[in-house]
Amino acid sequence: MMRNIKIVAFDADDTLWANEDLFRETEEKFFNLMQPYADKKKAKEELFATEVNNLPLYGYGIKTFMLSMIETALKLSGGKADTSVTEQIISAGRDMLNQPVKLLPGTLSVFKNLSERYKLVVATKGDLLDQERKLQKSGLTKYLHHIEIMSEKNTRGYKTLMQRLGVMPQEFLMVGNSLKSDIMPVVKLGARAVWIPYSLTWQHENVEADNIANGFIKMDKIADLLKIL
Amino acid sequence: MMRNIKIVAFDADDTLWANEDLFRETEEKFFNLMQPYADKKKAKEELFATEVNNLPLYGYGIKTFMLSMIETALKLSGGKADTSVTEQIISAGRDMLNQPVKLLPGTLSVFKNLSERYKLVVATKGDLLDQERKLQKSGLTKYLHHIEIMSEKNTRGYKTLMQRLGVMPQEFLMVGNSLKSDIMPVVKLGARAVWIPYSLTWQHENVEADNIANGFIKMDKIADLLKIL
Repeated sequence: MMRNIKIVAFDADDTLWANEDLFRETEEKFFNLMQPYADKKKAKEELFATEVNNLPLYGYGIKTFMLSMIETALKLSGGKADTSVTEQIISAGRDMLNQPVKLLPGTLSVFKNLSERYKLVVATKGDLLDQERKLQKSGLTKYLHHIEIMSEKNTRGYKTLMQRLGVMPQEFLMVGNSLKSDIMPVVKLGARAVWIPYSLTWQHENVEADNIANGFIKMDKIADLLKIL
Repeated sequence: MMRNIKIVAFDADDTLWANEDLFRETEEKFFNLMQPYADKKKAKEELFATEVNNLPLYGYGIKTFMLSMIETALKLSGGKADTSVTEQIISAGRDMLNQPVKLLPGTLSVFKNLSERYKLVVATKGDLLDQERKLQKSGLTKYLHHIEIMSEKNTRGYKTLMQRLGVMPQEFLMVGNSLKSDIMPVVKLGARAVWIPYSLTWQHENVEADNIANGFIKMDKIADLLKIL
C-alpha cells in the first residue's frame, strides 16, 4: 500500500477517457482530403511539423488542431485546394468538439471508491472550455475536489498545483498515460506517480522510457490503483 | 474607504491593458479582405453572427476569432474567396497573439501599492495560454496571489473562485470594464465591484446599465482605486 497520500490527481485525455483515437480518425479524414496534393506520408509529416511549430503560440487542443490542418492544406496544395476543403476541416473539428465522452473501463468505480478516502483532482492540459465540457459530460465532477487545466504540464505547473492544494510532494500521487507530461515532472519534484500507458500516444508526447529514473509505478489499467490505495 | 476587503480581483483585457482595439483593427483588415464579396456593414453583421454562434462550442479568444473569420469568409464569398484570404486571416491572428502588452496608465503603480495591503488576483476569461502569456509579458505576475482563467464569468465561476480563495463575498472586490462579466455576477453574489468602463466594448458584452441594481462603484480610471482602498 502507498502511504501518506492525500491527493490523487488524474490526467484526463487517454487516462480517464479515449482521446487520441479521435485525433487519429480526424487525421485520416484530413489525409484523404489531401490526396490530390500529397500522399499520406507527406501529409502526415507536414501536419506534424505545422502542429509542433504552432504549439508555442496556440497551445494544445482541438481549435489549434483545426488551425494547423487549415494551414497544412494551404501549404500542401500550394493554395490550390478547393474552399470546400477548409469547410470540411472546420466541420471535422466541430464534430470532435461535439463528441460524447466515453470513460475507459473501471474509471467510474475507481473514482467512487477513492473519493471516499482521498481528495481527487483532475490535472489536464488543453483547451479550457473543451476540457471543462468533457469533465461535465463524464459525470466525474461530483467526485472531484479540484480541477486544474494547465497550459503546460511541467515541473513549474505541478509545483503551483501542489502549493494551491496545500500538500507536500510526498502526499501527492499523479496518475496518467504520458511519461512526458504526467510522470517525469512529477517524479522530478519528489512526488509519486502511476503510469498507465494508452494504446496510442501522440508523437509529440513520446519519450524513451529508459531515459527516466525509476520512482514511478507502471500499471495496465486504472482499476489496478485499488491494489495500492 | 472600503472596509474588510481581503481580495482585490482584476479583469485583464481592457481593464489592465488594451485589447478590444486589437480586435477592432483586425476586423478592419478582415472587412477589407471581404470587399469583393460584401460591404462593411454586411461583413460586420455576418462576422458577429458567426462569432456568437461559435461561442458556446469554441469559447473566447483569438483562435476562436481566427476560426470565425475563416468561416465567415467562406460564407460571404460563397466559397469563391482566394486561398490567400485564409492565409491573410491566419497571419493577422498570429500577429494578434504576438502583440506586446501595453499596460493602461496607472496600472503598475496601483498594483505595487495595493499588493502591500491586499491579496491581488487576476480573474479573466479567454484562451488559457494567451492570457497566461499576456500576464507574463505584463510584468504584473510578481504582485499576484492567484490567477484564475475562467471559461465563463458567471455567478457559478465567481462562487468557485471565492471558495478556492477562502473568502466571503463581502471580503471580495472585483474590478473590471464589463458590466456583464465583471460586475453583474459579482454584485449578485453579494460581493463588491468597481466598474471602470473602457472606450470600446465588444457588442456581445453590452448590457443596459439601467437594468442593473446598484451595488457597485463606477470609476474613470484604475488609479482612482487608491481613493477607496
